[in-house]
Amino acid sequence: MKIALDVLGGDNAPLSTIEGAFSYLDDQGDSAAELILLGDKAQIESTIQELSRDKDDITIHHTTEIIGMNERSSRIFREKPDSSLVKSIQLVRDGEAQAAVSAGNTGALLASSLFMIGKIPGILRPAFAPYIPTDNGGFILCDAGANADTKPQHLVQFALMACAYMEHLGNHPNPRVALLNIGLEENKGNELTINTYPMLKSHISNFIGNIESRYLLDGKADIVICDGFTGNIVLKLTEGIISHLMGWIQKGIESHVINKDASSICQPIFDEINTTLDHEEHGATPLLGINGVIMKCHGSTSARGIKNSLIATQKTVQENLIADIVEILSKHTDIIDNSTKLSEANPV
Amino acid sequence: MKIALDVLGGDNAPLSTIEGAFSYLDDQGDSAAELILLGDKAQIESTIQELSRDKDDITIHHTTEIIGMNERSSRIFREKPDSSLVKSIQLVRDGEAQAAVSAGNTGALLASSLFMIGKIPGILRPAFAPYIPTDNGGFILCDAGANADTKPQHLVQFALMACAYMEHLGNHPNPRVALLNIGLEENKGNELTINTYPMLKSHISNFIGNIESRYLLDGKADIVICDGFTGNIVLKLTEGIISHLMGWIQKGIESHVINKDASSICQPIFDEINTTLDHEEHGATPLLGINGVIMKCHGSTSARGIKNSLIATQKTVQENLIADIVEILSKHTDIIDNSTKLSEANPV
Repeated sequence: MKIALDVLGGDNAPLSTIEGAFSYLDDQGDSAAELILLGDKAQIESTIQELSRDKDDITIHHTTEIIGMNERSSRIFREKPDSSLVKSIQLVRDGEAQAAVSAGNTGALLASSLFMIGKIPGILRPAFAPYIPTDNGGFILCDAGANADTKPQHLVQFALMACAYMEHLGNHPNPRVALLNIGLEENKGNELTINTYPMLKSHISNFIGNIESRYLLDGKADIVICDGFTGNIVLKLTEGIISHLMGWIQKGIESHVINKDASSICQPIFDEINTTLDHEEHGATPLLGINGVIMKCHGSTSARGIKNSLIATQKTVQENLIADIVEILSKHTDIIDNSTKLSEANPV
Repeated sequence: MKIALDVLGGDNAPLSTIEGAFSYLDDQGDSAAELILLGDKAQIESTIQELSRDKDDITIHHTTEIIGMNERSSRIFREKPDSSLVKSIQLVRDGEAQAAVSAGNTGALLASSLFMIGKIPGILRPAFAPYIPTDNGGFILCDAGANADTKPQHLVQFALMACAYMEHLGNHPNPRVALLNIGLEENKGNELTINTYPMLKSHISNFIGNIESRYLLDGKADIVICDGFTGNIVLKLTEGIISHLMGWIQKGIESHVINKDASSICQPIFDEINTTLDHEEHGATPLLGINGVIMKCHGSTSARGIKNSLIATQKTVQENLIADIVEILSKHTDIIDNSTKLSEANPV
């Protein structure tokens, strides 16, 4: 198996990406996949030297273009065809790698994957499904930002794909699926959630109903379904509040003269919480619905995050997540049939 | 001035509501408004006795019906016309009180106010605009749940009403208004936010652009505008995460034997944070756009929250928020004209 690794995406690239790649090779030994590192060849080689590693352990694929901060993600594959992000996806398309891993811009990764590889046949929209860790076991949030505007049939497919993915994550059969909503009752919500509820009820075996955002961290659901706008708001708000509150408490402890010992006393507790909440533990998540294994790492991922992402990627390819999504979809083709009927009845 | 106070709404009613009413009278002395307490007369009288207070200081308006947990809020005014919530609104409609205060169900309060009092002329939709306190000064979130599905022109009116309200809250001229979105650029977001951005830009003098949920607590905006579905998710998620994380830290401190002193050492910091985040400080918020002063308290409000809510209510009436909303709207009538043109061009 070959995995294409975009070394230029992410806040700590390329150093931590390359460090993570070697850490993965150390960890997996003989069972490791072959790694193709994409980026500037000279920069990759000098980083490898800096890390006192052997460049013969990996393959370097030289790319010449850099993706800037302000570029439109929907045009990257046209405007930066020789960037490490786009080339990584191209290798998967051409069968030269079985998966690609990137910590680059989610929108660019998604748009390029859609254009160059396309969707799994039958899938209406791809979705971004990160794992949100909590002290109660965590959950998958789907969609967390791939689609800003969605329809009920999209959300039902997101739920089916997330179920297939959750079962891959570990021995988690029949995950509990909830619909993110502003009330518990079936008739509560906006037009989208009110129309989605009965469809989830009929298509998802372990649909547990609506969940209010107040209880998201309480471990009641394994998969939380929502549109990508709401999911992205939830994802970033969760990260923002936790980081804000932890900083606030630590500042408070430091500023109280009387509590000069409290900082060291509380440190193990903060460390424990930070470890639990750490997205690095989980590694990358696949862009669900793309007809190839394209894995997205958190933008601020560290070497450890890259290592865990590569492990997750290898597992996703070996266990053939895409075949499982195809299989689960084949049992629910009426979602699309109904959706076709719907669009025929209401032509835009 | 007379204020109608629904003593039956809220988790701690009627005890804390009645306690809060007397606390308000103590606090405001001769300048206090007259209070009309609505609920079961015998229960109110026995609670007043329990608190060793004088029932002659207030007026009791006996009501006979109780609103249950599972009733449809949109029907309360028809099905429970003699409930304390509905009667409070009726007193305002009939001019027997200048404002009503309730910690009851937001949906029921809104639907009943809409039906019995109606909207300020020119307002398309009313909005719920709670104040979210932070260590950076806090902000108004509007709409936080009155409307699950909205259009751009609604959001622009929410912004105008929230500006009028923010200026009432204290010396806060020209508040910074931001649009909650999933990206900073003007072209980012869902259909609603993409179409709302240029309208806010042209109608709101201090529109500072999009804000991402990650930075909501950082004090960058005084008013954050969004649809009621997203706002409600944000409101409840913020409360949920903060309470979850604080509990988690305190549990951690208690469970570390080595840290048996840490609990008492950290307590002042937690107390400080809890005081800052306390919605009780701020009291109730008006249902913006209703043609009468109807104030909503937090469901879990305490006696102190009720006292502060009554102070805020008195101020809202005295400073004539509704007249200010009418005035600000008169300068932006083209929002409605455009909206009429829009609906004529695209008949449903």
